[in-house]
Amino acid sequence: MNDFTYYTPTKVVFGRGTEQQTGALIQEQSCKKVLLHYGGGSAKRSGLLSRVEASLKESGIDYVSLGGVKPNPRLSLVYEGIELCKKEGVDFILAVGGGSVIDSAKAIGYGVANDGDVWDFYEKKRVPTACLPIGCVLTIAAAGSEMSNSSVITNENGGIKRGCNHDICRCKFAILNPELTFTLPEYQTESGCVDIIMHTMERYLNQAENMELTDGISEALMRTVMKYAKILKKDPTNYNARAEVMWASSLSHNGLTGCGTDGGDWASHQLEHELGGMFDVAHGAGLSAVWGSFARYVYKENPLRFARFAVKVHGIEASGRDLSALPAEEIDALALAGIKAMENFYRSVDMPTSIHELGVDVTDAQIEELAEKCSFGQTRTIGIVKKLDKADIIEIYKAAR
Amino acid sequence: MNDFTYYTPTKVVFGRGTEQQTGALIQEQSCKKVLLHYGGGSAKRSGLLSRVEASLKESGIDYVSLGGVKPNPRLSLVYEGIELCKKEGVDFILAVGGGSVIDSAKAIGYGVANDGDVWDFYEKKRVPTACLPIGCVLTIAAAGSEMSNSSVITNENGGIKRGCNHDICRCKFAILNPELTFTLPEYQTESGCVDIIMHTMERYLNQAENMELTDGISEALMRTVMKYAKILKKDPTNYNARAEVMWASSLSHNGLTGCGTDGGDWASHQLEHELGGMFDVAHGAGLSAVWGSFARYVYKENPLRFARFAVKVHGIEASGRDLSALPAEEIDALALAGIKAMENFYRSVDMPTSIHELGVDVTDAQIEELAEKCSFGQTRTIGIVKKLDKADIIEIYKAAR
Repeated sequence: MNDFTYYTPTKVVFGRGTEQQTGALIQEQSCKKVLLHYGGGSAKRSGLLSRVEASLKESGIDYVSLGGVKPNPRLSLVYEGIELCKKEGVDFILAVGGGSVIDSAKAIGYGVANDGDVWDFYEKKRVPTACLPIGCVLTIAAAGSEMSNSSVITNENGGIKRGCNHDICRCKFAILNPELTFTLPEYQTESGCVDIIMHTMERYLNQAENMELTDGISEALMRTVMKYAKILKKDPTNYNARAEVMWASSLSHNGLTGCGTDGGDWASHQLEHELGGMFDVAHGAGLSAVWGSFARYVYKENPLRFARFAVKVHGIEASGRDLSALPAEEIDALALAGIKAMENFYRSVDMPTSIHELGVDVTDAQIEELAEKCSFGQTRTIGIVKKLDKADIIEIYKAAR
Repeated sequence: MNDFTYYTPTKVVFGRGTEQQTGALIQEQSCKKVLLHYGGGSAKRSGLLSRVEASLKESGIDYVSLGGVKPNPRLSLVYEGIELCKKEGVDFILAVGGGSVIDSAKAIGYGVANDGDVWDFYEKKRVPTACLPIGCVLTIAAAGSEMSNSSVITNENGGIKRGCNHDICRCKFAILNPELTFTLPEYQTESGCVDIIMHTMERYLNQAENMELTDGISEALMRTVMKYAKILKKDPTNYNARAEVMWASSLSHNGLTGCGTDGGDWASHQLEHELGGMFDVAHGAGLSAVWGSFARYVYKENPLRFARFAVKVHGIEASGRDLSALPAEEIDALALAGIKAMENFYRSVDMPTSIHELGVDVTDAQIEELAEKCSFGQTRTIGIVKKLDKADIIEIYKAAR
């Protein structure tokens, strides 16, 4: 079991109508001026933005607005936000939206609180030493950015998608009202569910001797999201289903499911990051498109772990309770059955299990470029179950084609 | 599903040798003077206190010491600590010990940061508005006070044990080194395991339609602690077992296992508080002594919930997967089998399942007094599954005798 630090200072306020507490929660932060940061028109059309603004006004909070965040949030808007905050003397950022808006807010927060080019932090050239305080009103259960230390930004100059992880960007508060997700299109809902499952699965499928408690929590989380993802396909305004998925989104990526692990194997995320950077696909859909090919490529490095995944998460029956006592062929068969069951789940909620199903017909030349970027110009490998170099990455993209 | 607020700001630093980080972690808090608060001689004898003091000195941190905290921590020592802190200008309290030391530190923190008698907060006459910042080095996995908002103090004047829950007392950091628990006597280890299980079980066995995710996490936690409690009986220096139990202690009582519930049914804790106040018994042992009698007294109010507990936590087989479709007699039988399995687990780790086994032969007059105190002089009922008045409480104490 590995040592760990667990730090989740975000105050979560969960339930119906909780966005009305926005003003009061910001008041607790004793700040002078807020940047209200959001995405496209849906927060406006739904009336959410008006309700949040009413709450700010009621609490006498001064603010400026910056909308226009897109999925795979852009560096150019981050620069714009930094300039606006400096000009207006903003000392708190309120993100109203999903992971893209929160990630953009974190990047702006880094940019205002540190000198120099904020993109340096995403290129790992420097480490941020401060961040403006951030709060959020979440509108989609997916990225887990509401409690995570993570921010992912896309530099349009080259289509490069990079992440920066640091505890100082963790939200001060997160307002989680499951009702705000009732009107999400089915594709976004299910893509979000994939993202949530993958945040846990990438921590779970690794090479460490995990904690039993962390494994048990992770298995419960993955089972829960699969169950309610299916329910939401038929019944998108089911409050309990929305709530289960929303809470799972936060717990999946706040660090809880990684305690005692080796940090997990994030290869699928890294494979997807390049797809997202080049083709601007929905993150969760990109993950489900590559995961099966990735899993089949690496599972033989740790078949027992994949077999446990099959039994505990997918309910596949083994011939004995103690998996480590089973013959190697059965372990192998279980591992493959688990991968297949996962892909079947993805199909059951209309998520892609290939890049083609993602709506992209990727060429050999593009795969070469994706793999070159994913391996940072052949200067790094990705993954832990199996260390994947550029040649491995090419094989996986081809298998996923 | 109920609305909830989840707030766990404590930074957990988990692993071998982590007590050497104490000085650095306090430095982050930028305080001037520390109260080093601890219990009896074991922290001294083991050399832990010296290592912690060395870390403070290395970081140039000024401190005063106050030892002598006993199990069921006393109000008189709390008063002494408050006076000492005020005299010495202490602005940070470091608790080195278990739940009793941390609870005592929280009480001192309340006393220094608020005017008036600190006991008022425990008698619910007033609500604290501030608390000195607190950090801890944990030496026993049990109470979960290292991440909880809870503090329980015993007023020797009348043997009254009362709790005060408020988020402002949550530790700034918690240093969790499982090795520090290697030398605990078996009785304390197992009593701690009971306490951890009960913190989750009291949230789990209630009347709400819980979140599936919270249920799954709670079930994993209880299964994990039962598994490793048995291992620790034979192998007390098993690092992984100590680590699983220690992390479970924190997660069991930091709020996670209550998300979406109705807050849970804390009757067993309240029944035990009176026993602890009158007879000074180990908290966990007191809980296992009364729980079975409590559970048999109330389960008929929610047999389906107790049946789920039997199936998911104790692995008792039901004739179908959908429990709500089973006949009432089978549900009833499952519920009783789950209660029995829990008592069998307690016996397997030499924990009492009656007050007599706790080493106390309680008289009718004492039961009358316990019930009078537990019902706050017949001004409150306890419990949620079934609201228990003084007459009910007497019946349960008698059944547990």
